[in-house]
Amino acid sequence: MKVWNMAEFEFFGYSTGNPFTDYKIYGEFTGRNETKTVLGFYDGDGVYRIRFMPSFEGEYTYRVWGSFSDKEYTGSFFVDKAESHGMVRTDGRHFTYDDGTPYYSIGTTCYVWANQNEETQAQTIETLKNSSFNKIRFCIFPKHYDYNYRDPICFPYKGTPIDNSDINKYNFYEYNENSSGNSWDFSMFNTEYFKLLDRGIESLMNLGIEADIILFHPYDRWGFSKMPAWANELYLEYVTARFGAYRNVWWSLANEYDLCRHKTIEDWEYYAKIVTKNDPYHHLISIHNCVKLYDFSKPWITHCSIQRQIGENELDNIGNWLDKYNKPVVIDEMCYEGNIEQYWGNISGEEMTRRMWKTVILGAYPGHSECYLNDDIWWSHGGKLCGESHKRVDFLHKIMTECGRLHPKEYTIAENDDGSVKLQYFGEHRPCYKIFNFENEKYRIEIIDTWNMTVEDIGVHSGTVTITLPSCEYVAIRWKKICD
Amino acid sequence: MKVWNMAEFEFFGYSTGNPFTDYKIYGEFTGRNETKTVLGFYDGDGVYRIRFMPSFEGEYTYRVWGSFSDKEYTGSFFVDKAESHGMVRTDGRHFTYDDGTPYYSIGTTCYVWANQNEETQAQTIETLKNSSFNKIRFCIFPKHYDYNYRDPICFPYKGTPIDNSDINKYNFYEYNENSSGNSWDFSMFNTEYFKLLDRGIESLMNLGIEADIILFHPYDRWGFSKMPAWANELYLEYVTARFGAYRNVWWSLANEYDLCRHKTIEDWEYYAKIVTKNDPYHHLISIHNCVKLYDFSKPWITHCSIQRQIGENELDNIGNWLDKYNKPVVIDEMCYEGNIEQYWGNISGEEMTRRMWKTVILGAYPGHSECYLNDDIWWSHGGKLCGESHKRVDFLHKIMTECGRLHPKEYTIAENDDGSVKLQYFGEHRPCYKIFNFENEKYRIEIIDTWNMTVEDIGVHSGTVTITLPSCEYVAIRWKKICD
Repeated sequence: MKVWNMAEFEFFGYSTGNPFTDYKIYGEFTGRNETKTVLGFYDGDGVYRIRFMPSFEGEYTYRVWGSFSDKEYTGSFFVDKAESHGMVRTDGRHFTYDDGTPYYSIGTTCYVWANQNEETQAQTIETLKNSSFNKIRFCIFPKHYDYNYRDPICFPYKGTPIDNSDINKYNFYEYNENSSGNSWDFSMFNTEYFKLLDRGIESLMNLGIEADIILFHPYDRWGFSKMPAWANELYLEYVTARFGAYRNVWWSLANEYDLCRHKTIEDWEYYAKIVTKNDPYHHLISIHNCVKLYDFSKPWITHCSIQRQIGENELDNIGNWLDKYNKPVVIDEMCYEGNIEQYWGNISGEEMTRRMWKTVILGAYPGHSECYLNDDIWWSHGGKLCGESHKRVDFLHKIMTECGRLHPKEYTIAENDDGSVKLQYFGEHRPCYKIFNFENEKYRIEIIDTWNMTVEDIGVHSGTVTITLPSCEYVAIRWKKICD
Repeated sequence: MKVWNMAEFEFFGYSTGNPFTDYKIYGEFTGRNETKTVLGFYDGDGVYRIRFMPSFEGEYTYRVWGSFSDKEYTGSFFVDKAESHGMVRTDGRHFTYDDGTPYYSIGTTCYVWANQNEETQAQTIETLKNSSFNKIRFCIFPKHYDYNYRDPICFPYKGTPIDNSDINKYNFYEYNENSSGNSWDFSMFNTEYFKLLDRGIESLMNLGIEADIILFHPYDRWGFSKMPAWANELYLEYVTARFGAYRNVWWSLANEYDLCRHKTIEDWEYYAKIVTKNDPYHHLISIHNCVKLYDFSKPWITHCSIQRQIGENELDNIGNWLDKYNKPVVIDEMCYEGNIEQYWGNISGEEMTRRMWKTVILGAYPGHSECYLNDDIWWSHGGKLCGESHKRVDFLHKIMTECGRLHPKEYTIAENDDGSVKLQYFGEHRPCYKIFNFENEKYRIEIIDTWNMTVEDIGVHSGTVTITLPSCEYVAIRWKKICD
């Protein structure tokens, strides 16, 4: 057992009636510097689980009780020092791990990777292992959407789904209104479905990748998007109990909340309360939009999760958002690389990369995905990456890490905390030179080709100097102050 | 003499004192359907000129009088039918020539081409002759600006300019405050300077290119940007009398009006009144911005002349501007192709072309220029074009002409007046297919490569059809309804 790993305890208890609703299991964990009370969950076959993430080294004792059993349980365990950085936290307009290591978020999206067969899921993990993405957005509920009409391998509840022989007959809006043909018991979870999600989240955790879990979305032919309030509450209680002890979890309360016709702002605020009340670790939490940004000033929201795609995709509003909300800004969607028909999924690899770099220069954090027409499409199913922009992510992350947290200074230029490092990204601009006025100070200058991923050190300069630039797109330049 | 050509009449008159201020010459021209009274101007050496543009065929009589002479003059002339389309007029949110021919504006900018030596000016005309630009923006006053510090070949007034041996020591803002070293008589025009402009405007007219003349700008070390009001009035009276009879003239009251520190909004309104009062032909007139758009709802303004460059360059506001002002929108500046240091002059040819196409799809009219580092830079001096985007202008104009006036319908799609032709420009998006639902109607579909300038006719289709697209950037698709 190590700090920020997950301790899981299994108990047997009552399995009569409906254990998902009829019984509860609680655990109180006490260690050096913390005591936390967590809710456990029923995992089928008479098994109840309590999960806990310790945040400190040393001895922990626990007490487990609840209506699930006549007995109470106590015990202790020892927590060794961490083998990870811990949870990601906000730090002003940036992110830091629990252990103080900076976290520079570059995320991708595979909405229903955890709903695919084992082989595809394994392929997704293998792909992520060889990538430098450190965040991935995906859904809990299955998705009815373009290119993704097939049934998931199983469903979140006991029951039977609508017949899928003609299911792309209607779009999700129409199914939102009429989901007859489905027969679910929203009070009985299919634990097999959630075990798959467990394994997915755990695999990601072991790769050091944040799991930005989407709790609700509207792309639904099964009725999951319009369950009665009691079912939504039961669901949220279940997933927070089940997944909350994984250090790498972020809560994305919704994907395109503004398209969820059966939930109002009041509902979102209410469900956010449930999630945060049941989360003793205070995972990062936000809510993603289609058109209208959520009010990110709400106290429960830790960071802005933003989609912006239309037209020139408005990345230049990042400065406004940073100032307005004073929270980290994650552009989770800015169109995806690909070749599908929909404009949000068919920009070039160069354009995807340009938008990611631009986001970083503006002081925010980018989101990626790909939509190349195939049986499996990364953005939806995961699997393999076949585009160009993903290859540029490791290099971008490396530059971000070298620079440290970036603060936008002027158009195309950002600087680090103490101003000793400046980074300018030209994007679609291609000056053939740049004049520096360093006066008496000395700077080491590097020319960065963000597409071909090269860094050229052109030495230390002071006074007024004219630097020749390659006069091609996607060039950046970095200059670092040299102190004697 | 033909309709919309210029009739010029020369008279001798008083040359004592200062003929520019002391004497006036008027002409009244009467023909079928019109009578116009115009102001003439002094052209040095005792010569006074009256210029008049007839708008109708047939017999005209004229009467010339004024303090310039004791004598009055009368005469007549016959006007044949037009050999041109006439003046450009607004037509809702678009442009039409006097004869009803549509005018699809694609402009370029060569700010001080008319201030260069004869050889360079001739080169500029030759370049324009071989291009498809049908509008060019340029200044009357000389310009003190990056890459353009050398003296013009002559000056607009009698007098002597500041010594130019160290003139890029200060930027134009500083010279705006202190232009000592200059010695001008703002009451005495140097007619040689204006003769050069005459020849320039006339050459453009003969090429069918609109001369979008910039009347004031702030890039000045000579004091022309801060003349007293009487001098500005005299100047405007002079240039409207001198240039107003050229059919191809547009008045651009200012370039970057918001950087002109010595003129207020009240001043602009006042000077606009002078121009329009002295313009019996009602040339198109607007005023160009640096940051803040002028209030284009002012009645004297015929069309929006807009600069937008920062960041994603906000072309998506075009729809808002069209709706707000209900006048044609000309994006006269959206960054220029090039490789100079300044971000506004170093985008790629692909990006310049993309912005021009995007502007057109959004229902507006684009402006181009190039800034490649050289002794002569097109955007400033004219001369030769050496970039890539200019080569795509003829093709763009051809497509615009074929489609007819375009009205934006949805993101990336525009249609013609009756909706029978639709044009979709994908820009940085590269779908590998597009699905059409034509139902019972028939459409001819063409795939357009806007960069390689090809049009591929892929036949007539009806019902639901999936069209394969090249899955590369800068593709457009056009579909035209076929009626049996």
